[in-house]
Amino acid sequence: MNASEFRRRGKEMVDYVADYLEGIEGRQVFPDVDPGYLRRLIPTTAPQEPETFEDIIKDVEKIIMPGVTHWHSPYFFAYFPTASSYPAMLADMLCGAIGCIGFSWAASPACTELETVMMDWLGKMLQLPEAFLAGEAGEGGGVIQGTASEATLVALLAARTKVTRRLQAASPELTQAAIMEKLVAYASDQAHSSVERAGLIGGVRLKAIPSDDKFAMQASALQEALERDKAAGLIPFFVVATLGTTSCCSFDNLLEVGPICHEEGLWLHVDAAYAGSAFICPEFRHLLNGVEFADSFNFNPHKWLLVNFDCSAMWVKKRTDLTGAFRLDPVYLRHSHQDSGLITDYRHWQLPLGRRFRSLKMWFVFRMYGVKGLQAYIRKHVQLSHAFEALVRQDTRFEICAEVTLGLVCFRLKASNKLNEALLESINSAKKIHLVPCSLRDQFVLRFAICSRTVELAHVQRAWEHIQEMAAKVLRAPGDGTAEIKN
Amino acid sequence: MNASEFRRRGKEMVDYVADYLEGIEGRQVFPDVDPGYLRRLIPTTAPQEPETFEDIIKDVEKIIMPGVTHWHSPYFFAYFPTASSYPAMLADMLCGAIGCIGFSWAASPACTELETVMMDWLGKMLQLPEAFLAGEAGEGGGVIQGTASEATLVALLAARTKVTRRLQAASPELTQAAIMEKLVAYASDQAHSSVERAGLIGGVRLKAIPSDDKFAMQASALQEALERDKAAGLIPFFVVATLGTTSCCSFDNLLEVGPICHEEGLWLHVDAAYAGSAFICPEFRHLLNGVEFADSFNFNPHKWLLVNFDCSAMWVKKRTDLTGAFRLDPVYLRHSHQDSGLITDYRHWQLPLGRRFRSLKMWFVFRMYGVKGLQAYIRKHVQLSHAFEALVRQDTRFEICAEVTLGLVCFRLKASNKLNEALLESINSAKKIHLVPCSLRDQFVLRFAICSRTVELAHVQRAWEHIQEMAAKVLRAPGDGTAEIKN
Repeated sequence: MNASEFRRRGKEMVDYVADYLEGIEGRQVFPDVDPGYLRRLIPTTAPQEPETFEDIIKDVEKIIMPGVTHWHSPYFFAYFPTASSYPAMLADMLCGAIGCIGFSWAASPACTELETVMMDWLGKMLQLPEAFLAGEAGEGGGVIQGTASEATLVALLAARTKVTRRLQAASPELTQAAIMEKLVAYASDQAHSSVERAGLIGGVRLKAIPSDDKFAMQASALQEALERDKAAGLIPFFVVATLGTTSCCSFDNLLEVGPICHEEGLWLHVDAAYAGSAFICPEFRHLLNGVEFADSFNFNPHKWLLVNFDCSAMWVKKRTDLTGAFRLDPVYLRHSHQDSGLITDYRHWQLPLGRRFRSLKMWFVFRMYGVKGLQAYIRKHVQLSHAFEALVRQDTRFEICAEVTLGLVCFRLKASNKLNEALLESINSAKKIHLVPCSLRDQFVLRFAICSRTVELAHVQRAWEHIQEMAAKVLRAPGDGTAEIKN
Repeated sequence: MNASEFRRRGKEMVDYVADYLEGIEGRQVFPDVDPGYLRRLIPTTAPQEPETFEDIIKDVEKIIMPGVTHWHSPYFFAYFPTASSYPAMLADMLCGAIGCIGFSWAASPACTELETVMMDWLGKMLQLPEAFLAGEAGEGGGVIQGTASEATLVALLAARTKVTRRLQAASPELTQAAIMEKLVAYASDQAHSSVERAGLIGGVRLKAIPSDDKFAMQASALQEALERDKAAGLIPFFVVATLGTTSCCSFDNLLEVGPICHEEGLWLHVDAAYAGSAFICPEFRHLLNGVEFADSFNFNPHKWLLVNFDCSAMWVKKRTDLTGAFRLDPVYLRHSHQDSGLITDYRHWQLPLGRRFRSLKMWFVFRMYGVKGLQAYIRKHVQLSHAFEALVRQDTRFEICAEVTLGLVCFRLKASNKLNEALLESINSAKKIHLVPCSLRDQFVLRFAICSRTVELAHVQRAWEHIQEMAAKVLRAPGDGTAEIKN
């Protein structure tokens, strides 16, 4: 395909994309296929001779679309939102064309420098403490990671290196393994599974701290665990606090947890993967209070800030904590500016070596929406979740299971787990809307997350009517018994 | 921006992209900017009010392009190629529009299933042993990782888990730390820095095995190291063999290294990040012989197979080795099909949780080029590198420093490191072409990698003439002395 065919096909694809997104409401949100459906529809080997674009685009509707879960349908209320906006898509086209791999400053200066400045812009939108910004001569700064999982892992590894070096400086006879055996990381029992995974990968123990009745980490329980572990000869080194947990969007209290970490010399990582975007609104910024105690902070603009995946924003107060943990400099990656202190080689900040020009997406989105446009977007989603909450509260057969702060509503029938599982099963089988569950204190709970960029009050109302219908069916089913309802 | 404005702006962007790539030869390959250039050109904070697309696209030429290293210029001969093709860009537009996050089968069945089948297609193109293919009921299979660094790390972590479980099954009193302290991984002294990094992250020792006069790992030296380490009470568990090293594109001999790993029960990971694409040509497939001894194999279609970054193809013989190492199943990610055995939840195969619909790029590229088109592309690059090699060999002031097998030529003036450094410096300062160096046995060597999709013999010839001119200047410079040249 040459440039002239690309001009033609590219424009057809732009129309296909616009058609898809404009018409997405008409597509069934969850597909009808069974496992293995696709293999039967396509050849077992790649073609020897070239095929035409027409062949392929026809197959998109025939083979791909029937198996797609439409995350951007206004009837998709599962997981958390994943961002999608036209400005981000335009930027991604440009990113693909420039196609540089920005592992060092020299590998494409614009790629590195725009990222540093965009992370400063975003940090200021969140009113992050100055120490997290790069500015002209700051010791901190931001980096785009692929996902929050990677950010947590990078923070844990940096903290592991830092504590190991400190202990070895004091007692040179200590081996790394002898230290690692005693290291302990902590997170609330509501933290995301990726935190547990980071512990597994990093080869350190992770302990779950019980959460309170608001599903927030109990600071007193953290303090007790630290005392107990230190008395047992273990070495606490790392705490993950979550702002906006995946199960129910609860918030750890940084003003309680932060001072403990500060006093004990522990690395505090704050994971606000979903909720972080909301902190650009002054009325939600208080949830971030205490971030001044953190060593690293992360959230995902690719969830709720209209910047398409992947774009996970991570800041650290001391960039040398990251670069010190990962720095390796083979000759083929060295360049003449690298020790100038002015420049940033982002390969030392992350797990992979390669990286795309992802800050273009932030630049396009921030400029084309403006801060006010982004705030309005967040506020609309929060209003919709409260509207759904109000609908649930009007139906006495249901209960709300956790405080609704942002765009997630956790709810259930006042009935057994079995009945609630049946309700979810019937909803997801009908495929008019799509939800996923969570588990809160052994209760099976349904999660209703405001996700789509185009979701309106009418969709939320229709979704609720549908849930009510499904509930009525489940409650009528023999053996499941309405009697169970405790209203 | 609504769909109708996206239709308009998207088409403008398609033209901008085509214009950029058609005109890239006219742009200076390496930028003139100094560190910090960009911050001075843009505001210190995001705008409050929306800006227009016109404002932004104007700034692309004013602010971004002056700082871009043009990786797709036919005068870019640095690092290794990074893929760029129109079919991949079209697929990426579709990927952005669908915008699903494919961490589980249910999260978007098409995303998972197309990936499995594309990895089978690609595995067959390489004639990988059947054990690496998923097929209908295979125990192995492929997955798209972000980068080769991640693939190496995933393999090392899976191997670490496997050996730890085996040892703990035999001796339940062994702690993980006690085992990790003794684990040893091995790679050639020519292996990529990401291998060393994987060892650091995984908390295990990595030993460099000396390479021979062809820069290939010495199997005898590996065997000796294993004996020595076992005698010292250490536990060898993991070997990385490299096909196509970054410095000079040398090849470890899998037929020598493989049987040793097999005999000793070590996990063999084969990293063919750059070279792997060439194995779709029968005349290069012999370099992959011995892959049947490997547990995992990886290469980057995003380097040399026209699939834009990121797309790193990794296969394992036993998928349970990966899923066993990483599997964690919170309720919000469970779905009804997950234990059917028919389906794949790729989140258990990788470090991040989220993942894009990257297999679309493979599907578009494989179909629109056909296997023959891809083979022709590889062959053209190899011919161009041999053409450059021939030019170098005709000039007796220069020498070739490593066998030219694929698209990389390592060469230098027959002179001191200092003079060769001066030569590279003068080439990269002139900015007509762009190269990076490497170090081979303490010699400073220039790397000439065939990179761009649009590079032709004329560009290679012009580049060589330019190098000759720069060499003449460097050799004329006072104090550097032509006398040094040993021709």
